[in-house]
Amino acid sequence: MSTSSAVDEREEGLKFQPRFDAAGLVTCVATDATSGAVLMVAHMNEEALRKTIASGEAWYFSRSRQSLWRKGETSGHVQRVVEIRTDCDQDAIWIRVEQTGAACHTGRRSCFYRKLESGDGGARLSFVDAD
Amino acid sequence: MSTSSAVDEREEGLKFQPRFDAAGLVTCVATDATSGAVLMVAHMNEEALRKTIASGEAWYFSRSRQSLWRKGETSGHVQRVVEIRTDCDQDAIWIRVEQTGAACHTGRRSCFYRKLESGDGGARLSFVDAD
Repeated sequence: MSTSSAVDEREEGLKFQPRFDAAGLVTCVATDATSGAVLMVAHMNEEALRKTIASGEAWYFSRSRQSLWRKGETSGHVQRVVEIRTDCDQDAIWIRVEQTGAACHTGRRSCFYRKLESGDGGARLSFVDAD
Repeated sequence: MSTSSAVDEREEGLKFQPRFDAAGLVTCVATDATSGAVLMVAHMNEEALRKTIASGEAWYFSRSRQSLWRKGETSGHVQRVVEIRTDCDQDAIWIRVEQTGAACHTGRRSCFYRKLESGDGGARLSFVDAD
């Protein structure tokens, strides 16, 4: 697995061979296909990835609940997948999605609704998105 | 830590309290501040995050080498940080950066240079970026 030819194949080849970590997961970043904004960062196991590819809608694996979930299953806030990319060493996935409603469970469009502001007393957060 | 008031504070508060995993890491997504493209997904430990905030340049923690690294330290391909965001539960970081040269160690602008194409024999990859 760590030979240079295996690395070359993984980095330069056309075979999709996602590299799951010790917990069986890859990191997945979902961005808004229109605005480009990062909506959320979550994880996929092999089954979630397979279902995402097959259905064209995002499925994830919840580490806290240790279970598979279809995004929007209860909320209706589904993600239609426009494109799936993988990175050089194939341990991360980037999906560009059409997001129905809110990606975040707090009801906000994106989970990344706060930014750091540096100040005298160290870094503090401030809200960035009106939605 | 898991009481509802602690969750509220983490999700709705203005205190920056990154939630490092068992290995002491948070996931970090770096996007191009101009194009919005996802450049890379990597990890930061507490020190990498602190140095990123203090210096305005991206620092990461390499899981394979188990060491801190300043992005571009040897290649010159530094990332100047324009904005730092955190997500709802503060276990992921999104940095918008001005990327000098290539984010990827393969010499490509982004690590996400291949996309999935579905075909008869299952998913295959194809190259997406000319650079």
